Amino acid sequence: MNLATLHPKKIVAAALACGILAAAPAYAQFAKPEQAVKYRQSAFILMGTSFARLGAMVQGKAPFDAKAAVENAEIVAFMSHLPWQAFGPGTDLPDSHAKPAIWKEMDKFKADANKLQDMTPKLVAAAKTGKLDEIKVVFGETAKTCKACHDAFREEL
Amino acid sequence: MNLATLHPKKIVAAALACGILAAAPAYAQFAKPEQAVKYRQSAFILMGTSFARLGAMVQGKAPFDAKAAVENAEIVAFMSHLPWQAFGPGTDLPDSHAKPAIWKEMDKFKADANKLQDMTPKLVAAAKTGKLDEIKVVFGETAKTCKACHDAFREEL
Repeated sequence: MNLATLHPKKIVAAALACGILAAAPAYAQFAKPEQAVKYRQSAFILMGTSFARLGAMVQGKAPFDAKAAVENAEIVAFMSHLPWQAFGPGTDLPDSHAKPAIWKEMDKFKADANKLQDMTPKLVAAAKTGKLDEIKVVFGETAKTCKACHDAFREEL
Repeated sequence: MNLATLHPKKIVAAALACGILAAAPAYAQFAKPEQAVKYRQSAFILMGTSFARLGAMVQGKAPFDAKAAVENAEIVAFMSHLPWQAFGPGTDLPDSHAKPAIWKEMDKFKADANKLQDMTPKLVAAAKTGKLDEIKVVFGETAKTCKACHDAFREEL
């Protein structure tokens, strides 16, 4: 396999499969807390948009498009690795959705992040079956993972 | 968890937690122009953050970390596929960096996007050599691609 000839998504999929992106990143630094907030919010916006598109298919609000399901699952999986680095000390800004509980219970927060990261490759695998019923099951499990973390750590503004 | 065994209200609550309200009918569509703008800005923020981190290594402003270089190149590569879908008709909002030229010269804009997408796998491949000199060359070429498109299509606000 020559990586240079691969589509970036395939490289990323390979990287995710090998856990390359799962490790605590050495690039986890921001010049300003505001940049960290922007960064994590950006990752959540991209993740949420793709998850919502999958949700629309799962709920029958949009026609099932197997290719788009895989693309969106891959985006969710990729994004599930990005936001956590941006919750460092001092990034608990008042105008964000982040509850102070994140920094008080960082171990639980990280455990929740890991749960999501463990789940998203399953979402990709389900999408790759091309079967909406299989996607539906893993989508539901993933949505529960989102909700558990949001209930504990996300403030509605 | 089996979605079929869940009470519908629980499915809805879990789905809401993951942004289902933002659902769009197909992969490349947004319910509101503002969502499209947020989406593309988010992709550029993540891409720009990782590109800047690579840049800091290339310019000697940060120590060379081969693993982080690969991670960041992969993020750049992944993101290079996302923003373009969000420049649809009607998304030329006045408070964004997008110049009207994007919609007047959509073919050129798309060609520029394709150039970036052709370049980013090379950036990943260079990063994987673990040689800063090789990264430097492709980083420079990629930066030129960014700049050419920004000069034509990005407004400084």
